[in-house]
Amino acid sequence: MAETRDLSLLFNPKSIAVIGASKDPTKIGHVILKNLVEGGFAGQVYPVNPSADVILYQHAFASVKDIPSPVDLAIIVTPQPVVLKILEECGEKGIKNIVIITSGFAEVGNAKDEEGIKEIAKRYGMNVIGPNCMGYINPSARVDSVFNPVYKLGRPKAGEIAFISQSGAVGAAVIDLAAKMGVGISLFVSYGNAAVVNEVDILEYLERDPKTKVIAMYLEGVRDGRKFLETARRITKKKPIILIKAGKTEAGTKAVKSHTGNLAGDYAVYSAAFKQAGIIEVESLTDLFDYSKIFLQPFPGGKRVGIITNGGGIGVLTSDLVIKQGLELADFNINTKQILREKMPMHVNITNPLDLAGDADVKRFELAIEYLLTEENVDIIILTPLMQTISLDASIVDLIVKKSQQMIKPMVVVTIGGSYTEQARTLLENGGVPTYTSPYVATGALAKLVWYAKYYER
Amino acid sequence: MAETRDLSLLFNPKSIAVIGASKDPTKIGHVILKNLVEGGFAGQVYPVNPSADVILYQHAFASVKDIPSPVDLAIIVTPQPVVLKILEECGEKGIKNIVIITSGFAEVGNAKDEEGIKEIAKRYGMNVIGPNCMGYINPSARVDSVFNPVYKLGRPKAGEIAFISQSGAVGAAVIDLAAKMGVGISLFVSYGNAAVVNEVDILEYLERDPKTKVIAMYLEGVRDGRKFLETARRITKKKPIILIKAGKTEAGTKAVKSHTGNLAGDYAVYSAAFKQAGIIEVESLTDLFDYSKIFLQPFPGGKRVGIITNGGGIGVLTSDLVIKQGLELADFNINTKQILREKMPMHVNITNPLDLAGDADVKRFELAIEYLLTEENVDIIILTPLMQTISLDASIVDLIVKKSQQMIKPMVVVTIGGSYTEQARTLLENGGVPTYTSPYVATGALAKLVWYAKYYER
Repeated sequence: MAETRDLSLLFNPKSIAVIGASKDPTKIGHVILKNLVEGGFAGQVYPVNPSADVILYQHAFASVKDIPSPVDLAIIVTPQPVVLKILEECGEKGIKNIVIITSGFAEVGNAKDEEGIKEIAKRYGMNVIGPNCMGYINPSARVDSVFNPVYKLGRPKAGEIAFISQSGAVGAAVIDLAAKMGVGISLFVSYGNAAVVNEVDILEYLERDPKTKVIAMYLEGVRDGRKFLETARRITKKKPIILIKAGKTEAGTKAVKSHTGNLAGDYAVYSAAFKQAGIIEVESLTDLFDYSKIFLQPFPGGKRVGIITNGGGIGVLTSDLVIKQGLELADFNINTKQILREKMPMHVNITNPLDLAGDADVKRFELAIEYLLTEENVDIIILTPLMQTISLDASIVDLIVKKSQQMIKPMVVVTIGGSYTEQARTLLENGGVPTYTSPYVATGALAKLVWYAKYYER
Repeated sequence: MAETRDLSLLFNPKSIAVIGASKDPTKIGHVILKNLVEGGFAGQVYPVNPSADVILYQHAFASVKDIPSPVDLAIIVTPQPVVLKILEECGEKGIKNIVIITSGFAEVGNAKDEEGIKEIAKRYGMNVIGPNCMGYINPSARVDSVFNPVYKLGRPKAGEIAFISQSGAVGAAVIDLAAKMGVGISLFVSYGNAAVVNEVDILEYLERDPKTKVIAMYLEGVRDGRKFLETARRITKKKPIILIKAGKTEAGTKAVKSHTGNLAGDYAVYSAAFKQAGIIEVESLTDLFDYSKIFLQPFPGGKRVGIITNGGGIGVLTSDLVIKQGLELADFNINTKQILREKMPMHVNITNPLDLAGDADVKRFELAIEYLLTEENVDIIILTPLMQTISLDASIVDLIVKKSQQMIKPMVVVTIGGSYTEQARTLLENGGVPTYTSPYVATGALAKLVWYAKYYER
């Protein structure tokens, strides 16, 4: 793995063969073909199946070797026993980029066939993702090899967060969450056993990918720890890497072994090395998602937080957590205090947290946000609007999105509630505003942003 | 506060006067009346407003003193300057139970009027909730004084979790979440400044309330720490108390003071005392909700966890967290192993976590759940079904609800995803199954359940 693999064509193909494409809608080979055809992939799609003529209105070929044009990418979903033969045929056809979805290799102790994949890949100079994986989703190229039906698992829009995951299931779940919340991704890769293309190769691709601003990772183990950390250390100087490590305990390590056939390694060693490499480690899968999106905010100039709320209690809880996470509560300057005192009703205390009171309307929030956005003593704004009050109408969403898009300071929203609030939260996320249901997670994410901004500037 | 207050009629009135009821739908006095009328309150409702004849088809009275029948409860939402006069009239009318929603008392430094409330309440022997609060929701009695419109803030069904909150906004947000997820409550009380009825009085009511199995609390400060802890220590021997304390830091303490006029006190002292009193303290508002619902599960016989999943990665993450939280991974007995080995496909590893593989269907889950429910080495079951796979159909929800209702062992579901998964999760919660989007929170809650089961049995 001394030289850098070129994965551009792998992740941006103009023509794709789906080997093992099926007419049966309950088969993976059907779902993947359908996602490509209906998902708007603009290039050529070639179903390959020895016993089908036409699948989903596409002419099917008995073998890849029958396809009359060059093929940039082959997605293999055939039964395990024929994978090596198919891979060889791909080589003969000159296909350089492969995704092997099929499982039944190293993860079940079948080292021989896994070696077979490596040998063929090496002989033909192939980039192979997998086996035992979901492949990838590249929303801007409209390529999608994830085999979960779209009605069950949403697909995110194009965006700036890349997510790479050793586990397909974990990856898919997070992707689904991103889709629901309207958070965009630049690339999702489930790389499974990493027989050929591994986490380092993908990181190196993302390092150079201009669409990717943030890298999120689910990792069980790495093949070459030194290389991984070296690469990560280089990348984190340019882009943040947020990581969750599975297999931290003896029990987890055992579970990893039967999952992707990897050795999870000694976690304490890993964790210390991650830190040195500038990697931001999280402990919870939801944090992986919640922390990643904070890095699309502007870098803060410092760590002084201004809190704006219409619910005193939430303001108090958030204040506690600001301090706990090593951030500071801003002391508003005298000018701001005077102006806000003049403009706000008397029952609003001009202090931080700025509790606009239960009868606050959107105008009162607008005033507060405007002053804190330009207030020199405030580096970060946490808005904790309780959406459920009588006086706060739905235009609070438009206001926050508009102010957030000015990208003056990091601004996040903490709000908690039921259906009405969740809808507002989804709209905010769609508008690019990071939202949290808990001040605990919001302040945790902000603390990492503050840390990374310093690390980046060093 | 030496003797116990009788709050039965306060929380279960047969007749209610809404003083300050309004025709204007943007006014609190309108929303509260509407919620009582439309919410199905079976008793008498009397709007009181000097300038209205009929409000929401109810005959309105100029003064409480004009109401011809006895009144069990008065909800006061008038402007602040007339509250004391109104309260005096309530006393003259013989109303013993009052909720004062109106703010502008101790929380804004108006100690004089707060004293006035206390004095009148004492003179007439009144139970007064508030001022500066939202009052309460008792779903089984259909009483609801929360002034947020129902379309913005959902109302939970009747259930077994009581939630008492010094902050109305925090309380309302959690209630709204409970409504969305279909988690029932026995009582919600927002008690605000606690001028007369305080947290201890409410705790003592809940102690004897047969509908309440679990008590959740948001607390900023207490008036009489010794009495609070004494009461809590007695209650936790019978029912768990889950608590979040706001105002832990200097910044938070300052914020508390301008919120409910309370002194938050020294947090370290509080925290140690909470522990001694058997109170389960949480740090995040979402945890308050997520931890509370675990206590409606049967008590576990031990701390050995069996994990059933169809997504290897989630199984690994969950295993790590089981250990981290001080629980254990169960070692399945030889019988279970043999039977499962016979009945499961070969690519399913019979180990814990039990990864049923990506192609698992509901039947495979059923088999696994059945065996682990009766397996003597398993005290707790964590199910982590990824709902998004092709092979897992929606009947997984029915299966889990059915098995959960047998109440043999604590069983929780961890699942993460977008709209489809969230719908499944909501159905599960409606069916009484505690669900979590993160194994981190699920294992945290389970660890508390294990701890409390031991504490309870001692």
